[in-house]
Order: sequence, then structure tokens, then C-alpha cells
Amino acid sequence: MIPDDSSRILEQLCAVIAERKQGDPECSYVASLHARGLNKILEKIGEEATETILAARDSEQSGDSAELVGEVADLWFHSLVMLAYFDLDGSAILAELARRSGLSGLEEKANRTTP
Amino acid sequence: MIPDDSSRILEQLCAVIAERKQGDPECSYVASLHARGLNKILEKIGEEATETILAARDSEQSGDSAELVGEVADLWFHSLVMLAYFDLDGSAILAELARRSGLSGLEEKANRTTP
Amino acid sequence: MIPDDSSRILEQLCAVIAERKQGDPECSYVASLHARGLNKILEKIGEEATETILAARDSEQSGDSAELVGEVADLWFHSLVMLAYFDLDGSAILAELARRSGLSGLEEKANRTTP
Amino acid sequence: MIPDDSSRILEQLCAVIAERKQGDPECSYVASLHARGLNKILEKIGEEATETILAARDSEQSGDSAELVGEVADLWFHSLVMLAYFDLDGSAILAELARRSGLSGLEEKANRTTP
Repeated sequence: MIPDDSSRILEQLCAVIAERKQGDPECSYVASLHARGLNKILEKIGEEATETILAARDSEQSGDSAELVGEVADLWFHSLVMLAYFDLDGSAILAELARRSGLSGLEEKANRTTP
Repeated sequence: MIPDDSSRILEQLCAVIAERKQGDPECSYVASLHARGLNKILEKIGEEATETILAARDSEQSGDSAELVGEVADLWFHSLVMLAYFDLDGSAILAELARRSGLSGLEEKANRTTP
Repeated sequence: MIPDDSSRILEQLCAVIAERKQGDPECSYVASLHARGLNKILEKIGEEATETILAARDSEQSGDSAELVGEVADLWFHSLVMLAYFDLDGSAILAELARRSGLSGLEEKANRTTP
Repeated sequence: MIPDDSSRILEQLCAVIAERKQGDPECSYVASLHARGLNKILEKIGEEATETILAARDSEQSGDSAELVGEVADLWFHSLVMLAYFDLDGSAILAELARRSGLSGLEEKANRTTP
């Protein structure tokens, strides 16, 4: 279960990314990705997807999921960095997930609360 | 901002996926993916990553982000389906995102509340 | 070793692809990909790359390379279909491979014989 | 057209890769990839596939295909490095391309001349 205490992690992480995007590329990884442009961010998404796939195969053989969790976290993180490039954040994804997954109550709420 | 009302979407979606994984592959997309095995789930992650990359390039040209949001939602959804294959869910990813991103308060909370 | 008799396979395959590209999308897979546009061709490259990666992991476990050979062939085939979209063919790739790989004699020949 | 003089580039490149695979990882890129293992080689295939996709979109906008040719060459090169990991080379791919593409004469030749 996703703990109540961490339910706002995505929201806070998106706020951090939006702030760092404006920062000094010398000091911030997020700022450096944005300074290098959209293709560089998209290359990272391709890389992290490949690493997720390989880590899943490793995890199936080893029974250890720590590497896999790390790779999915990297994939989602770079997805959020890419969304920030378009001035979007994770809320749009959560609303779409609710809508597509037929979570009817959730869908209604998401539609009500996102612009 | 991620609306308060939708903050539990990920948690509820993971519960739905975990339940559907056990279901009839004829009736449930999630069950059919699990019945076809890990490679089929990983192929979907590769496909959705590529479609996300192409949608981002389209979005940059068109200024319309609806397709992009849909592709990232698909990528995250199939990530969650893959995690369910390993009996994991989104909580592990949120905890790792908090830890890696140096969200110190969040990290502390995530460490406190995840096993 | 690549047999002498098959050394012109790539050349002949590129000629076939260039011809089929102009054909009826109802009758030709190559024509149907071109009719659906560049994104559809690029999605296929992403899919075949993922399938190649998974087949390599399978091959390492099983010791059987037939599936892997088929997936790399698919990846190269769709690369050639994509090059045809830009009115290019495999000769440009072979010349670049010679140049980059420091095959000095080959590089010299490739530079001499490509326009 | 693929020039006659360059028709054996793939054969010679495969021979170079097979030889370098045995070499000093400090001196040879191919040897260093093999020393780092199959996952590292597969990560490179994923990376080069993503870069090919992005270069194709760039090329469509700019009309310049030099970057695209370089990325496809990188993708094919790393495919050959991966095949060498399994003691295979480009001949298996050419034979399969001939067989799948219904190049009947070529297929017959390829079947005749490959083991």
C-alpha cells in the first residue's frame, strides 16, 4: 500500500523539479537537462526504459527487486522532468490514469479538481 | 498542482491492478498481459516509451499536449502492471523517488512508513 | 563469414523496398508503413529494438539464437524502410560504418565509390 | 545503390569486431563493451535506437540526413557487437533478411551458402 504520509511525494517532487528547471545548469541536474534541450531529456527516457526492461529480467532471475525499483523511479523521474519542459506536471498523468482505468469515482474527482 | 482529491489515485490504481492480475485473461487487459508473460509486459514498456518520445516531439511542434499526457499515462500504467508481476506496487517507486531526490523531509517520512 | 553469394542481399533488398514504397498499401507491408507515416515507422524501430534486447536475454539463457537473428533482421529491415522514407538506402550506412570503424582501406573505397 | 567496392564492408567489419572482442578493454571500445557484459551492450542498442528515432524526426524538419545516417550506423554497429557476443555475425542477418523478404533467388543462395 502507498502510505498516507508519502501520498504527496509526487506533488512535492513536481514542485521541486519546476523550481530546479529555472536554476543553474552547473548546480542542478534538472536545470542541466533542460539547458541541453528536449532531445537530451527524451534520450534519458529511452535509456531508463531500456534499463527498466533489463532490470526486470535481472530481477526475475535474481529475486532481488532493488535495482528494478531504482530504474522505474529513474524512468518516472525523467518523465516528470520532460513534463516540466512542457510546463506540465504529474497531476495531468494521475487524472488521465484515473480516467482511463475506469476508476469512476476517481475519474469524477480528477475531472472536478484539474483545470 | 496535484489536487488533494487525486492524491490517492496511484494507490487505488495499484489495488485495481493487483486484483485484475488474478482475473480472467479473456475479460481483463491486465490479466491478459500477465498471462502472456513478462516479455510481453516489457515489450509494452518499450512501445510506450517510444510513443512518449514521439508524442513529445509532436507536442513541441503542435503545442497540444493531450496526446503526450496519454502516452506518459500509458507508460506509467504499464510500469505498474510490470511491478505487479513482481508483487510490487507504486509505493516502492514513490519512496525511492523521495529518497533519490533529496526531499529530506519526504525521505524521512517514506523511510518511516515503508517496510 | 558473409558468403560472397549473399554480399549483394542488402543492395537488392533496398531496391525491393524502394519499389514497394510506391505500391498499394493494401498489398504491400512496406507501402502500408509509408502510408501510415514516419511516426508509425519509428514506432516499429522502437518495438524491434525492444524485441532484440529481450531476445538477446532469452538467447543467453536458452543457447538458441534463431529468435535473436530474426529480431535483428526485423530491426535492420525497419531501419531500411525508414531510410527509404528519406530516399536513402543501406549504402549510406555501409559507407559510414567503414568510415567510423577505421577500416582505412574500406573507408577509402567507400569514399571513392559513394557520391 | 550500394557500390560493388563496398559490398564486403559488413563482412570485413564483422571480422574486425570478432578480433577486437578478444582484445584489451583498455585499448578497444569493442573489447570494453564485451568486458562490461551483455546488459551494457544491450543498453547501447536501446540508446542508439532512441537516437535514431530522434534523428529521423530532426531530419524530417531540417532536411539534413547526415546525423540520421550516423545514428543508424551506430545502431547497426552495436547490433554486430551484440551478435559477436553470441559468436554470430552479419551473415546470419543477411540470410534471414533474404529469406523473410521473399527474395527468392537470394534466399536460395543464402540457404545454400550459410552453414
